[in-house]
Amino acid sequence: MTTISSADDLRKALSEAPGPSEAATRGAEERNGQLTKPPGALGRLEELAIWYAGWRDDPRPSISAPQVIVFAGNHGITARGVSAFPAAVTEQMVLNFQAGGAAINQLSKAAGARMDVHALSLETPTEDFTQAPAMDEAGLLAALRAGWEAVDPAADLLVVGEMGIGNTTSAAALAHALYGGTATDWVGRGTGVDDAGLKLKAEVVAAGAALHAGQGDGLDTLRRLGGREIAAMAGAIARARVARIPVILDGFICCAAAACLAETVPHALDHCIAGHVSAEAAHGALLERLGKTPLLSLGMRLGEGSGAALAIQVLKGAVACHSGMATFAEAGVSAG
Amino acid sequence: MTTISSADDLRKALSEAPGPSEAATRGAEERNGQLTKPPGALGRLEELAIWYAGWRDDPRPSISAPQVIVFAGNHGITARGVSAFPAAVTEQMVLNFQAGGAAINQLSKAAGARMDVHALSLETPTEDFTQAPAMDEAGLLAALRAGWEAVDPAADLLVVGEMGIGNTTSAAALAHALYGGTATDWVGRGTGVDDAGLKLKAEVVAAGAALHAGQGDGLDTLRRLGGREIAAMAGAIARARVARIPVILDGFICCAAAACLAETVPHALDHCIAGHVSAEAAHGALLERLGKTPLLSLGMRLGEGSGAALAIQVLKGAVACHSGMATFAEAGVSAG
Repeated sequence: MTTISSADDLRKALSEAPGPSEAATRGAEERNGQLTKPPGALGRLEELAIWYAGWRDDPRPSISAPQVIVFAGNHGITARGVSAFPAAVTEQMVLNFQAGGAAINQLSKAAGARMDVHALSLETPTEDFTQAPAMDEAGLLAALRAGWEAVDPAADLLVVGEMGIGNTTSAAALAHALYGGTATDWVGRGTGVDDAGLKLKAEVVAAGAALHAGQGDGLDTLRRLGGREIAAMAGAIARARVARIPVILDGFICCAAAACLAETVPHALDHCIAGHVSAEAAHGALLERLGKTPLLSLGMRLGEGSGAALAIQVLKGAVACHSGMATFAEAGVSAG
Repeated sequence: MTTISSADDLRKALSEAPGPSEAATRGAEERNGQLTKPPGALGRLEELAIWYAGWRDDPRPSISAPQVIVFAGNHGITARGVSAFPAAVTEQMVLNFQAGGAAINQLSKAAGARMDVHALSLETPTEDFTQAPAMDEAGLLAALRAGWEAVDPAADLLVVGEMGIGNTTSAAALAHALYGGTATDWVGRGTGVDDAGLKLKAEVVAAGAALHAGQGDGLDTLRRLGGREIAAMAGAIARARVARIPVILDGFICCAAAACLAETVPHALDHCIAGHVSAEAAHGALLERLGKTPLLSLGMRLGEGSGAALAIQVLKGAVACHSGMATFAEAGVSAG
């Protein structure tokens, strides 16, 4: 499917999406057992390579076309003073992405990844979700579709990142609405709010969840509490699921987008691994809800896809070992 | 110094080695504060870049010439049955390294690193350290010097790895002799010994430490309980310290080599970071003794320099962000 005409299209496509190839998974497991190393000695690199092989339907795969997509959106909720930075920074950072000056530019380049930037109606922030749904149905569809269409079908690995002043508040509201607990369980300092800012964020998140939680599935919650860039991330992750393109999840906001899919269709995130656990307070808890163990834990909390882009190299290393190493028989090494 | 003529030469060179450049460290800290990201949002990547800048005496450095060196040696202690693999595998794996078929070949290539292999008198295993010192003074010097001379002075980053059937036993004996505790605190399954093998390893380690602990400094202990490849790693790490080439430490054996330096001269490892914590049981405890926090924790336990080689990419990402990102002023982004 090159595009979607409704949120229901996305639900249906996700529900019908194929899983990984069992034959390729078995073939990769068999190859892994023959490589010149003690069994299990490459640790998680071995599982990563086998998982990747299954999704790519190739027992000896390579990664040659990773794609990083950064989506940007503005949030009505910023009027409530929830961020340490002014909303104008979203657009300024989009220009920085386009000029090659942001962290994600350097990390994409280091990983040999193509990087695309999509700014989503920055001149039209979403509604303040304490007052009304953040988006209407048309707005949600436009954002989901922007994400869906942004994925290169020829990519063999996907990272989605974001920029959107205020979006840790939106992501916290999504997590709170989807998973319960209290608002304070899910809020963090984002780009760096102080204690008063953190308290305000929790109040805003509680108000949003009180107004919108429990009304429909994950995509409905996404419409009510999300942002355009968060919905676009969800659309891109869903497209990758359908196209069997493995995804490395980034931080708190990316995982909130992913959670909306997981709460809509089971197995929606089987093609995803967690690139890292960020320093944003609730990211670890969100990863637990998603059942994902992060590859990296480096105290990053930048967003943009930065943690996941760094993790591309871990996955590339895993696949390079799997597909490039000699077997015991090829190398004439005694197998213990 | 292009070579050393005695172990004392190495002690003296280490004692007199310069630290990182304070001016470059300050310059890098200043630059870090101006980059287009919230303060601290790149987490450990920020410290890494500043640390690297100091050692390279360049506030805006790049990494273009990483070197991976794999040293191989044979251990008399293998006659005691401490490994799951036969001693002949050391030489077989050297041929595999030379043919490009091992994990470290793939990981070095993925990291853009030059890789060298040095096999150290494989036909002459060290002595069984439960009976006699593993090496005499001449043997220690030859191995230290092989490591010292293997470092390319033009390298801007160094990883040292090893291959040596039996060398987790040697490394455990070094750690036990240097840091005390009990033999069982320091032994692990290596390439995969069973419970009986593990018990035997602990007995061998205890016997070795009983015979050799507390006789001299770290280099003396290295001579008595180490192996040629372990001494060569120590020699290479020392050379890098003198030449201000930053080092990423690998797993348990590499860290045992490093520990011998740290117990010889204070600040011997200031130029080193820990690439990963391995699945070898005592590696975490050894890193704690060295005061190093690992970058990666992926359950790897292969040696060869594999975990450190993977971590090259984390450091490269850190330095790429530091040196490649725009400042707030350059990008016209509001600084919050």
